[in-house]
Amino acid sequence: MSRVKLVLAYVGTGFAGWQLQASPDSPQPRTVQGELEKALEKLLGQPVRVHGSGRTDSGVHADMQVAHFDIPARFAQLNWAAALPRFLPEDLGVLEAQLVQDDFHARFSATGKVYTYSIWLGVSPVPPRLKPFVWGVRGLDLALMAQAAQKLLGEHDFAAFQNSGSKVTDTVRTLHGIEQYPLALPGEKHIAPDSPLRAWRFEGNGFLKQMVRNLMGFMAAVGQGKLRAEDADLLFAAKNRSALHFPTAPAQGLSLTQVLY
Amino acid sequence: MSRVKLVLAYVGTGFAGWQLQASPDSPQPRTVQGELEKALEKLLGQPVRVHGSGRTDSGVHADMQVAHFDIPARFAQLNWAAALPRFLPEDLGVLEAQLVQDDFHARFSATGKVYTYSIWLGVSPVPPRLKPFVWGVRGLDLALMAQAAQKLLGEHDFAAFQNSGSKVTDTVRTLHGIEQYPLALPGEKHIAPDSPLRAWRFEGNGFLKQMVRNLMGFMAAVGQGKLRAEDADLLFAAKNRSALHFPTAPAQGLSLTQVLY
Repeated sequence: MSRVKLVLAYVGTGFAGWQLQASPDSPQPRTVQGELEKALEKLLGQPVRVHGSGRTDSGVHADMQVAHFDIPARFAQLNWAAALPRFLPEDLGVLEAQLVQDDFHARFSATGKVYTYSIWLGVSPVPPRLKPFVWGVRGLDLALMAQAAQKLLGEHDFAAFQNSGSKVTDTVRTLHGIEQYPLALPGEKHIAPDSPLRAWRFEGNGFLKQMVRNLMGFMAAVGQGKLRAEDADLLFAAKNRSALHFPTAPAQGLSLTQVLY
Repeated sequence: MSRVKLVLAYVGTGFAGWQLQASPDSPQPRTVQGELEKALEKLLGQPVRVHGSGRTDSGVHADMQVAHFDIPARFAQLNWAAALPRFLPEDLGVLEAQLVQDDFHARFSATGKVYTYSIWLGVSPVPPRLKPFVWGVRGLDLALMAQAAQKLLGEHDFAAFQNSGSKVTDTVRTLHGIEQYPLALPGEKHIAPDSPLRAWRFEGNGFLKQMVRNLMGFMAAVGQGKLRAEDADLLFAAKNRSALHFPTAPAQGLSLTQVLY
C-alpha cells in the first residue's frame, strides 16, 4: 500500500460541499470527494476512498484543501499530478500530488487551518465576476469589526458559533488570528487601501461546523451597530447559537486557504 | 425622447458575445445586448434598441462596457440603476446609469478603449477559479515580450492583426500603450512582483476585430522565441494575418476595461 497526499483547489459554486452524501435512495449530489473518487476509479479501475482535511459546505471554495488516499503499491509511481486532472472537472484542480508516509493523515495530522472570508462593502453593486466569491454588505464600520475580532481571539468555547447538526462534543478552539486587509479588484494594478473588496483571514487550531461563517456574521452585526463587541462574552458564556440574533454569513464568501501540519 | 447611458460589467463565459445575432430561423443565442433588450422590454413594456461602444467576442469579459438607449421622456425619471438590474441575470451588472444629452453615442462618441489581457505563466496549473479569466502559457520571456510591445506601439496599419469577417476598410489605429504588470492571486494580501498571474493593458484609439487577442498572440510567440520582435514590421508591411504563424490568444483572458470619451 502507498499513500498519496493531494493539495486541491476548487470553486465551491458547483458543488454540494466536500463530503460524499450517504443517501442510497436519492441521486448522489455533485461533491468534491465524489468527483475525486470517480476520477480515481476511472484511472485505477478500482474504488478508492479519499480522506479530506475536513468538510467544506456547499458553495464554499478552497484555494488549498488537503486530502489523502491509499493505493496498491504498484500504482505508486504514476505521475499523479499529471494523470489525475485528466479525469477531473474544470472547477476542481490538483495543485500538488506526492507520496507520503503511511502515518500522514489529511485530517488527524492537521494542526490548524486558515480560512479567508471576502466581503464587498462598496455602495456600488458587486461586480458580476465577484458575485460567486463575496458577501455584499453595506454600512460596515471596520474599526468596530476589529474590536469584535479582538474579543473573539484566543481559546474559547465556541459552541455559540456552531450551527446545529454537529456531533462534536468538545467545542473549545483557539483562534490565533483574525486579520482584515484590502484586496485588489480583478485586473487592478495596485491594491487600494480603501478598496471596497476586503478579506478577513481566520487562523485557528480547528473550526466547528460553520464557525467562520458565524464569526463573520457576528462581526458584521457589530460592524453595523446591531451588536456590541462585548456581546462575544455573552455568547461564549451562553454556549448557544440562539442567545443573540446575528446572521450566518453566506457560504460563497468563504474559502479554505491553508491546512497547517 | 430621453437617452440613458449605462456602464456595464459582465462575465463573458456564459454569453455568445455582445451582439444580438440576426438569425430568424435558428434560436437566438444568449448575448449581452439580447439580455439588456429583454430586460428593458420587460421593464417598459415596449421594445428598446441598445447600442454598445463596440462588440465583445464570445467569452470576452467586461469590467466597464458602455451602452446607451433611448426611451420615451415619461420614463426618464425611473431609478434606472436600481430598476434595470432586477430584470438582468447574475453575470450582467449595471455599475452606473444616467441620463445624457442626445448627442452622446456609446460608439461614435468614444475616443479610445482600454483592454486588459491576463495570462497565467506559472508552472503550476491554473487555479480553478482563474480558469474562465486567463490564458495559461508556459515558457514566456517577459523581456522579449516587452520588446515586441515596443514595436507595436504608435500608429500602424494593423490589418495583419485583424481576424477575417470584418467589413472595416480603414485598418489604421494608434496604440498609445501596452503595459505589463503582476496581479494579485485571489485572496492575496500583496501583489508579488514575480506573480505567475500577469496583465497586459492595451490602450488605443480603437481596435479591430480580435486585434487585442492577435497582438497578445504575437507577443506570446515572441516571448516563447518562436518569432522576433522585429517581425512586427513584417506584419505591418504584409497587412495579412497569414504572413507569419502566430496564435490568436483565447477569448477568456480578455476583458474590456474602459471606454474613453
